[in-house]
Amino acid sequence: RIMRPDDANIAGNVHGGTILKMIEEAGAIISTRHCNSQAGEPCVAALARVERTDFLSPMCIGEVANVSAEITYTSRHSVEVQVNVMSENILTGAKKVTNKATLWYVPLSLKNVNKVLEVPPIQYERKEQEDEGKKRYEEQKLDRLETKQRNGDVILPVINPEPHTVGYSQSSLIHLVGPSDCTLLGFVHGGVTMKLMDEVAGIVAARHCKTNIVTASVDAINFHEKIKKGCVITVSGRMTFTSNKSMEIEVFVDADPFVDEPRERYRAVSAFFTYVSLSKEGKPLPVPQLLTETEDEKRRFEEGKGRYLQTKAKRQAQMQQAAQ
Amino acid sequence: RIMRPDDANIAGNVHGGTILKMIEEAGAIISTRHCNSQAGEPCVAALARVERTDFLSPMCIGEVANVSAEITYTSRHSVEVQVNVMSENILTGAKKVTNKATLWYVPLSLKNVNKVLEVPPIQYERKEQEDEGKKRYEEQKLDRLETKQRNGDVILPVINPEPHTVGYSQSSLIHLVGPSDCTLLGFVHGGVTMKLMDEVAGIVAARHCKTNIVTASVDAINFHEKIKKGCVITVSGRMTFTSNKSMEIEVFVDADPFVDEPRERYRAVSAFFTYVSLSKEGKPLPVPQLLTETEDEKRRFEEGKGRYLQTKAKRQAQMQQAAQ
Amino acid sequence: RIMRPDDANIAGNVHGGTILKMIEEAGAIISTRHCNSQAGEPCVAALARVERTDFLSPMCIGEVANVSAEITYTSRHSVEVQVNVMSENILTGAKKVTNKATLWYVPLSLKNVNKVLEVPPIQYERKEQEDEGKKRYEEQKLDRLETKQRNGDVILPVINPEPHTVGYSQSSLIHLVGPSDCTLLGFVHGGVTMKLMDEVAGIVAARHCKTNIVTASVDAINFHEKIKKGCVITVSGRMTFTSNKSMEIEVFVDADPFVDEPRERYRAVSAFFTYVSLSKEGKPLPVPQLLTETEDEKRRFEEGKGRYLQTKAKRQAQMQQAAQ
Repeated sequence: RIMRPDDANIAGNVHGGTILKMIEEAGAIISTRHCNSQAGEPCVAALARVERTDFLSPMCIGEVANVSAEITYTSRHSVEVQVNVMSENILTGAKKVTNKATLWYVPLSLKNVNKVLEVPPIQYERKEQEDEGKKRYEEQKLDRLETKQRNGDVILPVINPEPHTVGYSQSSLIHLVGPSDCTLLGFVHGGVTMKLMDEVAGIVAARHCKTNIVTASVDAINFHEKIKKGCVITVSGRMTFTSNKSMEIEVFVDADPFVDEPRERYRAVSAFFTYVSLSKEGKPLPVPQLLTETEDEKRRFEEGKGRYLQTKAKRQAQMQQAAQ
Repeated sequence: RIMRPDDANIAGNVHGGTILKMIEEAGAIISTRHCNSQAGEPCVAALARVERTDFLSPMCIGEVANVSAEITYTSRHSVEVQVNVMSENILTGAKKVTNKATLWYVPLSLKNVNKVLEVPPIQYERKEQEDEGKKRYEEQKLDRLETKQRNGDVILPVINPEPHTVGYSQSSLIHLVGPSDCTLLGFVHGGVTMKLMDEVAGIVAARHCKTNIVTASVDAINFHEKIKKGCVITVSGRMTFTSNKSMEIEVFVDADPFVDEPRERYRAVSAFFTYVSLSKEGKPLPVPQLLTETEDEKRRFEEGKGRYLQTKAKRQAQMQQAAQ
Repeated sequence: RIMRPDDANIAGNVHGGTILKMIEEAGAIISTRHCNSQAGEPCVAALARVERTDFLSPMCIGEVANVSAEITYTSRHSVEVQVNVMSENILTGAKKVTNKATLWYVPLSLKNVNKVLEVPPIQYERKEQEDEGKKRYEEQKLDRLETKQRNGDVILPVINPEPHTVGYSQSSLIHLVGPSDCTLLGFVHGGVTMKLMDEVAGIVAARHCKTNIVTASVDAINFHEKIKKGCVITVSGRMTFTSNKSMEIEVFVDADPFVDEPRERYRAVSAFFTYVSLSKEGKPLPVPQLLTETEDEKRRFEEGKGRYLQTKAKRQAQMQQAAQ
């Protein structure tokens, strides 16, 4: 497929992640097709491992990526796939190999996802191909075991917060501002920012009450500063207040103009979102109370309570007016 | 437009953020059109504020969202837009108001984005409409000033890290696993995970060296555990090693099956990504050295150095073989 | 909606496929709404055919697309929808008609996707409208039958092709059908298929003439068979004919229901796309002549020439009529 502006960074180089995604799609298709080629239980091939991958030359916007995949080894329960990616400039006709990747897939039954099925064996042209494949198979098996043990490390030491504290549900995401997020002037659409804010607020609310949650209202949102294409934005949310059936979450948007500009990170937007928790029948559920610990948390809870009571009073006044 | 699975949560309710994004797009179109309706400098309307918005009833997958927008007030430099959203079930014909939102836009010159242009005045049917609009205008102006002052707060206390330390570039993102991220079995495609991992690694690398960076290679990636639809995944990255011209970033993927399941957060994937920094001409640039502070950071740096030297030796051996 | 960088090629012209997708979404909404307007079994309208469509003027990034749809004829089991697309430059206010398309839909029961329901009849203002509609209905029915028979052909890769031969520009892509590609019934939206077809045809055209190319028209497209979620579709295109300033590309869509079903790959859709090559100033450029080698290629070239001359004659007749 043709590489688009959203697939690339501002210098026009396609993200490695976009290429990895295409490689995996090709691998998943060929190995799923192979594992279903003999009569038997239908299955889907699940990715188990990607071997070390080098990006040999960068791909650019407007080029066509050609992805080809081939099955190179089968063990009893796994398939090795070799995927090659070529970039083609369709205007000049120039072609370059950009990636060669090796992936391992395991067939899982469609009926029972915890059941690993058997893989139909492939035919090898020469005996050595099978032997070399077997060697690769044994090596990766060992390596998988090793990394599994090494894997206990954690990057951001969270101090095991208690359920229902502010720290427990607090969340943040980063987003690299791409071309389709922006207006003609090269600044982020307000709507894109709001969508990300709602996403974070929703995760905070769901972490707090572990049920299906929906947005009930959004406080006034002020856009203090423009956010430029190529920025990284950090959207972070924390719960500030809970009533019996609603949760208030404060969300901040900070922009980090990290390429090409000497400017510091700045606060671009902030707002309060209110969520409610719903049962499977769509009825509002009671919400666990927020446990406040620090002085700041207690102060913010009181402020949130003020906003909640004010909104409630306003709504009642409107209903009385409407009833008259 | 028709609401799709990707617009909604697993219970089928459309995300508030999707609706907010549609509202803002409608507002941006009508106000840009209005501000360009008189001869003069061409401009684009930028969102300055969204008034408090209530979500009156949930919208569902398969329903059609009808969005209508109207300009209700103009001051010298700003436009007030009223947007209404109706959900329509095209199977039953049932329609419901889901949102009413008020947005404020400011016209920015296409030639000079820091120049705010004048807004062509609208005609009011009755004098009271203009007076009420003016009152709303004054109120929101005051409120914007207030929130601007309140806005200094920060959610995640970062301890002012020095440039080029591990803590300085360390980054993480959260992602809610949606239907289009998943296979037929309801588990995340490996390719989707890898794309997010590359995104985080790229942000870490760019934060460290503040230049255009590209993926050079990815270490073997093992997928230890499946990640289910509806999970929140946290992808976090930290720099472990720098050579003269490359950076190694360790990336972890943790899954949080927070709805419907009592299970704890678990480590699903981890890998090392190597990035290089490029000049505007596409030549590799020297990379600032990573400053290690703690014992763990120093140990990880040495381990990274080991991997780097090993890869280098392997590559040299291959080149010698190829030359023979 | 506003056209974004990802909707367009590198010269800023919106892909014909993006426009086809919007047209189909509008058609699907209005016809599903109509078919459910009387009490009865709920249904979803499935695209059966798109009449020949001309792209009258190119649309650009930043313009707003206004799509309007109207039901113009109903037979017992099908609905004819007329969709018009206008591009609006909201900075200058300029509006242009970019497309007029005619689509045929068939209502499928929500409970049983193989059951075609009855369509509520519309009221015609004049008797002639009904008669003309009936004539169009009979014509398209005949044409659908014909293309169904013609449809057995397969596009195979060629080794080391010469420039401007058929094999040289021939291209194909595969796509795994995900949830957001599908209707409520779990079948691919016609618009999604058309967008992929345009993408492949565009790559064929660009490979052939190595310039900026745009869709000029699409021949009638017949949707012979539904494509289900989870299928892999192969979209392949080859050039069939060149005039001095246009290229005709034949595109096939084959579906591979590789999981869950023992069924063979089948031909789902096929159509002819016509492209023109544009200079940097947007003027049509001469196109290199297609070199035909095999007997089949020569035959297809002659057939393409026939279609080309027929269209040209029709257009001249229309212009004479309009001039009278």
